Amino acid sequence: MLVKKVDIILVEVTMRNISAGGLSRLLGIEEGIVLKSPVLEYHYKDDALHDPLINDDHIELLNLGTAKEMKKVKDYSSSVNEILKDFFNKCGLKLVDFKLEFGRHKGKILLADEISPDTCRLWDKKTDEKLDKDRFRRDLGKIEEAYQEVLKRIKS
Amino acid sequence: MLVKKVDIILVEVTMRNISAGGLSRLLGIEEGIVLKSPVLEYHYKDDALHDPLINDDHIELLNLGTAKEMKKVKDYSSSVNEILKDFFNKCGLKLVDFKLEFGRHKGKILLADEISPDTCRLWDKKTDEKLDKDRFRRDLGKIEEAYQEVLKRIKS
Repeated sequence: MLVKKVDIILVEVTMRNISAGGLSRLLGIEEGIVLKSPVLEYHYKDDALHDPLINDDHIELLNLGTAKEMKKVKDYSSSVNEILKDFFNKCGLKLVDFKLEFGRHKGKILLADEISPDTCRLWDKKTDEKLDKDRFRRDLGKIEEAYQEVLKRIKS
Repeated sequence: MLVKKVDIILVEVTMRNISAGGLSRLLGIEEGIVLKSPVLEYHYKDDALHDPLINDDHIELLNLGTAKEMKKVKDYSSSVNEILKDFFNKCGLKLVDFKLEFGRHKGKILLADEISPDTCRLWDKKTDEKLDKDRFRRDLGKIEEAYQEVLKRIKS
């Protein structure tokens, strides 16, 4: 595995295909609605401010990324979404949403994040059973079993 | 005065030239910083949700406005900002920020809002004294005097 040290961009990208969690709370819509097109959100990576939702103008104001960099970030996020959605679908899983982070390395924008049930919401395709971080966030139990199940499906 | 009944767009536009209020809280920056370029924000007009900050994808998801309509809203807001900034500057006032609402009327997008010290933050150009809604929001007193002062300057 080749490890590269990146200068992290302080913007967390969330890509959403189905309403859940923060989106449902933000807009007052129920969970589980298939979105007509993916929703992309930027959150400012700042613990003290609780990673607030921000827009392009805020990013420019805070010099978090140039317009060119953010265009790359957006395009990569959409591509990753299409690839992962298809990948998980073949494993019998719905990719509800996920977050990504990016960094700069020698003038290029690189994906700089793990992709796991800690960073993705994954639901069983038939039953909508939650197989991700919401199992412990919402105290649903069977956390390890869910993560094992995801691993099993990915491997098979 | 010609009154037209519009179908209101449920998106409140905030245009900001100087950091204050919600922007300062959102990004953890002090008030009074002159922004290198104006910051535009969309807020979803929903009292129960406390008018949350939203982005273009949320607007599309909720069908609040088409991309074409929102382009108009954005362009109009920028134009209004340039005109008002200049106007208030001539009255010895800094236009810190303001909010606007828009509506549809016979297929056209129309500005559908008042412009007053209730909807604008206005600071004295020399002393930065607040002459707007923050006088009562922040319990600074002399509310009527401040509004009268704005009226006097606009009229002269």
